[in-house]
Order: sequence, then C-alpha cells, then structure tokens
Amino acid sequence: MVSWNNLDTLKSFEALKATKRVPLAKVMSGDEGAQRVKNYWVRMAEGLSYNYAAKEVDDEILKVLSDLAEEAQLADKFAELYNGAVINTGEKRLVLHQLTRGQLGNDVVAEGVNKREFYVGEQKKIAEFANKVHSGEITNAAGEKFTTVVQIGIGGSDLGPRAMYLALENWAKQTGNFKMEAKFISNVDPDDAAGVLKSIDVAHSLFVLVSKSGTTLETLTNESFVKDALKNAGLDASKHMIAVTSETSPLAKSADYLAAFFMDDYIGGRFSSTSAVGGAVLSLAYGPEVFAKFLEGAAEEDKLATNKDLLKNPAMLDALIGIYERNVLGYDSTAVLPYSQALSRFPAHLQQADMESNGKSVNRFGEPVSYKTGPVIFGEPGTNGQHSFYQLLHQGTDIIPLQFVGFKRNQAGMDVIIQGSTSQQKLCANVAAQIIAFACGKEDENKNKNFEGGRPSSIIIGEQLTPEALGALLSHFENKIMFQGFVWNVNSFDQEGVQLGKVLAKKVLAHETDGALKVFSDLLNI
Amino acid sequence: MVSWNNLDTLKSFEALKATKRVPLAKVMSGDEGAQRVKNYWVRMAEGLSYNYAAKEVDDEILKVLSDLAEEAQLADKFAELYNGAVINTGEKRLVLHQLTRGQLGNDVVAEGVNKREFYVGEQKKIAEFANKVHSGEITNAAGEKFTTVVQIGIGGSDLGPRAMYLALENWAKQTGNFKMEAKFISNVDPDDAAGVLKSIDVAHSLFVLVSKSGTTLETLTNESFVKDALKNAGLDASKHMIAVTSETSPLAKSADYLAAFFMDDYIGGRFSSTSAVGGAVLSLAYGPEVFAKFLEGAAEEDKLATNKDLLKNPAMLDALIGIYERNVLGYDSTAVLPYSQALSRFPAHLQQADMESNGKSVNRFGEPVSYKTGPVIFGEPGTNGQHSFYQLLHQGTDIIPLQFVGFKRNQAGMDVIIQGSTSQQKLCANVAAQIIAFACGKEDENKNKNFEGGRPSSIIIGEQLTPEALGALLSHFENKIMFQGFVWNVNSFDQEGVQLGKVLAKKVLAHETDGALKVFSDLLNI
Repeated sequence: MVSWNNLDTLKSFEALKATKRVPLAKVMSGDEGAQRVKNYWVRMAEGLSYNYAAKEVDDEILKVLSDLAEEAQLADKFAELYNGAVINTGEKRLVLHQLTRGQLGNDVVAEGVNKREFYVGEQKKIAEFANKVHSGEITNAAGEKFTTVVQIGIGGSDLGPRAMYLALENWAKQTGNFKMEAKFISNVDPDDAAGVLKSIDVAHSLFVLVSKSGTTLETLTNESFVKDALKNAGLDASKHMIAVTSETSPLAKSADYLAAFFMDDYIGGRFSSTSAVGGAVLSLAYGPEVFAKFLEGAAEEDKLATNKDLLKNPAMLDALIGIYERNVLGYDSTAVLPYSQALSRFPAHLQQADMESNGKSVNRFGEPVSYKTGPVIFGEPGTNGQHSFYQLLHQGTDIIPLQFVGFKRNQAGMDVIIQGSTSQQKLCANVAAQIIAFACGKEDENKNKNFEGGRPSSIIIGEQLTPEALGALLSHFENKIMFQGFVWNVNSFDQEGVQLGKVLAKKVLAHETDGALKVFSDLLNI
Repeated sequence: MVSWNNLDTLKSFEALKATKRVPLAKVMSGDEGAQRVKNYWVRMAEGLSYNYAAKEVDDEILKVLSDLAEEAQLADKFAELYNGAVINTGEKRLVLHQLTRGQLGNDVVAEGVNKREFYVGEQKKIAEFANKVHSGEITNAAGEKFTTVVQIGIGGSDLGPRAMYLALENWAKQTGNFKMEAKFISNVDPDDAAGVLKSIDVAHSLFVLVSKSGTTLETLTNESFVKDALKNAGLDASKHMIAVTSETSPLAKSADYLAAFFMDDYIGGRFSSTSAVGGAVLSLAYGPEVFAKFLEGAAEEDKLATNKDLLKNPAMLDALIGIYERNVLGYDSTAVLPYSQALSRFPAHLQQADMESNGKSVNRFGEPVSYKTGPVIFGEPGTNGQHSFYQLLHQGTDIIPLQFVGFKRNQAGMDVIIQGSTSQQKLCANVAAQIIAFACGKEDENKNKNFEGGRPSSIIIGEQLTPEALGALLSHFENKIMFQGFVWNVNSFDQEGVQLGKVLAKKVLAHETDGALKVFSDLLNI
C-alpha cells in the first residue's frame, strides 16, 4: 500500500533543501558544460530524448531527488493508478487516460466492463465510421463527401484535440494523410461560432459535438448555433452531427446524431486527447491509422514512466526537477517553448493540463498545504517568442525555468538555403544558442547589455514531429503533471475551482443577484 | 525638467508600503461592494470604461498612488516623451508611436523632418496604394485582383498586426469592410511559411515584407522562401511584394518591391501597430478608413493618458495599481482575459508589449534595481480560459491579478437564445460572475470546494469591439506599460536582452562554437 503524505513531511525534502546550489553559468561553461550535455539526458520513446544539462542539478541533487521519488512512492502510486485504484478521491473515480493507449498493469474492470476493451472498442467504432466518411459510404444528404470536420467542445474537448490537429497538419499534407480539414468552435462568445461558420461550407461539414456530461453550457449553446445554421441552409442537422460523450449522457442515444462515440468518467477532460475526444476529430482529419500511431507513441512513453529508476524515467525526472525549482528555488512560473510552429497551441494545452491539475491549495484529504503547488505555465513557439517575451526571460527580475522542444527535421519538406544554412538549421541553431545564453549569460561592462545567466532550461530533442513523437510528447507532460501532483499530495484529477463561477453565472442569467454582481450585470447589459 | 529616480527612493513608495491592506472579499460584498462598482471606475475613450472596484484599493491607497504618480512625475515624463525628448536613452532615440495617431504636444522635428507630417504622409501613401489594389488599378501580372495579403514579419511586425486583424475580422465581414483576407508568416521554422503558402492562392496574393532594419534574419529568410514559391508558380515576385521598412534600410529603394512604406527608428516594434507596420496590412484587409478609425480611437485614449489627475487617467491608474500589486503585494504575474473571441491573440500581443518593455533589471542609467519590474503576462479569451487555467487562478497557491475585458454586443450579429438567454448574455454573465467569484470567494466546509476569494481583478467594459474601441484598448495598454516603466525607472523602449541569443545562433551556424553549445549543436544536427 502506498501512503499519501504532504511534501513537507518527507525527510528527503529536508535533504533537498539542504543541498548546495549549482552555479549554472559556471558548470555549463567549457569542458564541464560539454560533459554535462553528454551525460545529463535520458532516452524517451520514439527517438526523443530529454536533456537536463542546463538545469540547476548535479549528481548530489539528483541523488536526493531519487530519494524523494522513492520516499514519495511515485512509481508505486502510478502503479496504483494504472491498476485501477480510485486515485481521483475528490470525485471518487479511477483515472484511466493511460488505458486509452495501452495497458500497463492488471485488467481494469469497472461496472463490470473491462475498460481497456471498452476504449479499444470505441477506437474501432470511430475508425470504421471515419473510413466510411473517407470512402464516401457516409455522405451528406446530397450524396456528396464531407470535406470538413468541426469539433464543438471547450476546455479539454478543445485545447488538446486542437493542439494535436495543428501539430500534424503539415505532416499529414506532406505524407498524403490529410483527409479532411478540421475547425474548432469552443467559446460561448457567439462570434466564435459565427466566424467558423462563415469560413466553411456547412453542406459538406460534419460536426463533432463533444461533452462528457452532455450538459456543458458552451457546447450545447454552440450546438444550437450550428443547428440553426444547418437549418437555415436547408440541411438536416442530424445528418451532419456526431456526438462524443459518456454512455449515460443525454446525447448518448439521441436521434439528433449520425453516431455517438463514448468516453467515460475515468477520462478527465484535460487528459482526453487519446480518448474518443481526440480520436473522432483526428481520425476524421488524418485517418484512423494516424491516430493509432499517435496512441502508440503515447503508450511507449507511458511505459518509460513506470520505471522506478528516476534517471531512466524522463517524466518523473522532469517532474522532480520542477519540484526543486518550485519548492526550493522558489520559481513561480514555467515557460514552454517549442521550436516548432506546428506546436503553436501545445503550450495552451499544457497550460490547461498543468494549471487545472495542480493549481490546488489543499491536499488529497482536503487539508490546506503550506507549500507552493502548480506554477503558472505559458509559452509560444520559438523563434517567435525570442522576438517577444524573451527579453524578460533573459534580463527580468524573476527567474523562469524554460522547457524547450526541438526537432532535427521539419514536417513540410520545403526549405531554403540563405546565408549558407537552411531555415531548419537556423531554427535549431537558435534553440541551442538560447539554452547557452540563458544558462551562461555574458558579462558586459554596460550593465544594460549584461546577461547574468543562471537561468535554467531543459530540452526535448526529436528527429521529426510525427504522430508517434507527438504521442510521446503528450504522454511525457501528462505523466510529469501526474508525478508532480503525487509529490504535492494534491488530487490532480478534479477541478472544483471552476464551479463557483458557473454557479454565479447562472444566477446572473436568472437575474437572481444583488450587490456588486447585480451592478456589474447591469453594466454589461445582461 | 523631470528627474529620473528609482522607485525605492520615493517617499510615496514608503507610504504605499505602510498603507493598510484592503480585505477584498469583505469590501466587495453587500452594499459596500455595489457602491464600489458604482464609484471605482474611470471613463475611457470610445465608450469604454475601466472599472477597478475589485482591485485591492480604497480611497487611502488611491490617495497614496496619486502622490506616487506626482512624485514620479508621470504626466511630466509622458509630456517629455510626446514633445520629442530622447526617452529611449539606451538607443538614444525619441519614442514617437503616439505621434502616428495624433499630436499631443509640440511639433516634433527630427533630422529636419516634422515627424507627424511624415507619419501622416505614409498613411496617405498606404491609403492610396490600398485603394488602388481594391479598385483593381494595381493587380497581378494577369490583370486579376489580389484577394489575399500576407504579412511577413516577426515580433512587433507580427503579433500586434495579427492580433488587430483577428480582432476586426468578424466586424469587417459584418459591416461590409472586409476587402482581403490576411495571413501571417513569422517563424523561421520552414513549416510556418510552408503551411501558409499551402493555404493560399499565391497568384492572387500580395506579400508585405516588414522589417525596420531590413536585416531581420527570420523575415529575410521567409522572404526568400516566398520568392521561391512565386518563382516556382511562374510569377514575378517583384509584382507581388511590398516593403514596410525604414528609409535607410536596404529594402527602401529596391526594385524587388511594388512599393515601400516607411516607419523610423522612433517606433519600437512592439508599439508599431499604429504605424505603417500595422497600417499596410490592415488598410489592405479592411480599407484605409477602418485603419483611420482605429487610429482615432488610439488618439482619443492617448489624450486621456495626459491627464495629471490619476483618477481621470485610466492608463496611469491601471499602471499604478499594478505597481502596488507587484511591488507591495508581491504578485508575480498578470493574466489578461478578454471575454471576446476576436481578442484571441490580444494577450499574446500584450505579452510582448509588456514583457519586452519592462522585463529589465537595470534602470535607465544602467544601474541594477533592487525591486521587481515587469511581471509575467499571459492569457486566453474567456470563457475558454474558465475551462482551462482558471482552476489555478481560483484555488492555486499564488494570487494572480486579472485584467478582464468585456463588450455588451457581439460583432457578427448572429446569436441564439438557449435557456432564456443569448450567447452574448451568457458570455457577459460569465465575466461578471468571475469577478465576484475571484473577489469574494465562497466558504465551504469541504475545503476542496472552498474559495478563499481575495483575488483582485479589473475590467474594461465596452459597447462593441469596433475599430475605434480596439484603438483605445491598444493605447490604454501601451500607455500603462509606459507609465509602469517610468515608475520602475527602466528604459521600456530598448531590448538588449534579445541580443545574446542572436549572436550565439550566428556562431552556431558558422560552426564557431565549443563546449556545451557545440554538443547541443551536434545533437540538433546543425
């Protein structure tokens, strides 16, 4: 049995606070720096590697982090999770997103159903449906092929699938896997749906309504919005819509949809990209085989996360270095900086996955914790960010740990040589340069041009952003978040903090408010 | 004459630290809360208002902030700036972006040129050019109209213009002002340009190359990328490209471009949306009249920023409340949360504008400061963010000040009534509800469902996101950033922190590296 303890009750945490700080600028210089880059990395799945040479760690700190991983029973806790324990204690639920892409432990049976079989079954149903859409067996009423798929969902039903879609768009076009264009409607702002509807041909569009509960206000509102548009175009909405929901939701067996595919309560929204939530739109856009490869990559990376040896477990290692930065060094935010335009919305997805999971002030037992938990996560792709907020990262008054991602090859297969190098080489040269600039800095007599250095970063390096690599990347961060939640002893799988706003918004719409809320409601013409 | 002093040398800063903290949850409840919402707001231009009822301020703190504004000579410093002083001391330059949209003070003459006349002259040249493109007087070689405009630029030549374009897309379509679709290429990642080129019809596309110096590596690389594509399509690149640059740049008088429009060294990239950098693409996309209205809104808001009375100067007030939060209350980041899908990239633009301006550790004289300067800025539109990172904002261990924006009416004129309210009403109800939820919280015996409240926010409320309102909004934040820079005594208008990375990247590409950088370069196949 594992035991759940607060971070500040662990002996190894005291030991961690007592370790000697690593002088990053110094150790990353000269031969020592070269050796660190060669030594401080760990193999990930699908040809990726996680290099932490430019983090403020050394062998001693890594040893204490290993002790911490052991004392906090991180591998055992993960095993409990994938073997089907009720890890989400707040909502009394299992946590099974890893099971959508592979089976790491025992059969998990809930309500009499083998959950792995259930998830695989839904994948097969989606694959069959998508193949029929692509082959023209399922068409619009005029017998014409659907060309566009529009996901209607918000939060986890939007950010992850959207980020994954964008991540593979160029790859799919280049490799002949681009089947249908995808669009996304999320915001209750009517201009969101209006903008998307104006940009597509509704007669050839298939809408995927995604809501686990079938009650998400934004999503149901946008569904009505779309149904109106279909009706106004003289179309039968039920021939243009499918649902992704739980089997118990009102959407599950409705005649309003061409088909329904299922997830369940054991898949948190922000961890649902590998479930039917991502599966439907990605299988329609790029084909079920591509989605399957994406799952394979995630499954391979999940396996690495089961390793008890911290130095061979990239997600756990990344997590623990983050704990050291947050709880010992006192860094309050983390920037995610993929040097890949395809990953333009990956930071926004991680922002949800991380901040919604670990932005908590109470532990699993509802007791306030007396240490910092989840940091602020933000980021944009490089090199764009270099021309934006990197000024503050280099010379601002706060130190912000950086998480770089880079690939050796591009996706689209187009490049130009300017001044003796390709764009891809320039891209990679920039990320390499940034790591060293942040770590080592550069002295200048003009203090305005001085770089103190000592700003830590890690980098995940891959060959190319393929579906497999994307799956591995996603899994890495999901598991990192899970391990950090274990260390902080919080429940990473509920989100009670989003409830109060919903309750108050309903009161505003029902005109049941007083005080400041009433005045604001009046000011906003509600 | 103004005198430039560090924040921690000011008496009023000591007084600010000695003020009594406002119990936000308490004062925002009941009648007192209602009164605060009615009292604590200031009129902005174009029908906007800035409401700071839910900030941790009271009359006493506001009085001390007024003293601070006076002691720091903020209005006088702004006057120096718009009258043409060398405010950007690092680069020894004037700071004239406000002059692109109006004249607040004396004539500003530099190098014998009246700069207001220069900026207006460029606007007229752009307007004439755009009108000729729209009328079909300027066409492609086949005599066909251009349908698409593609901006090639990075940083300030990308984020601001892109955010403004997206902000007005639905409005323009609804009001008959949509002339040409715009796309943007920024990243040196070859997949960025490849992706955009695959999505457009190059034969009917006009490319706007934007680089003040004419030497930006990313932009020149992407220009070559595009020229290759035009050549491969059998087209004459020089008939498809215009340049926005400084008069002294290599691009200024090149036969490679159909036309060139000018900015100068007195317009910082991140403040260039109202110069030719934003002017060309926005005038082409929506017509010069729309761009002129956008400038009008910014000019009106700039006028308010000249007010010496803090309580009538929204940008200065917003700035000083931010100083109180950063330097007294110790909050390290700020979230920008527009309840408007059209403003989806506005937070990314502010992220650059703010973090690149004030992410500094030395004062105007190159001396290290001993207080915190610019915070981390991040954000996504609501209600999307509610289903993402708001969990941490409500229940995380750090308090993060919030900057909301909301409009009473949508842009696209399409809406649906579901459960008795429109989508627009739901959107507005949510932002009103969030302000109160963050400020007041809600006690619950189950600590997992407990909301402590005390989380401060402000909101800018407008009628509709029109070009004028957008201009006012942009000006507000630009001026807020400027005032905060004055208070911190930093130079907000240079960006030396971006240089080291560029220098090292060049070394990597020239294979002139050793140590850790050499190893990273090898790992990345450069």
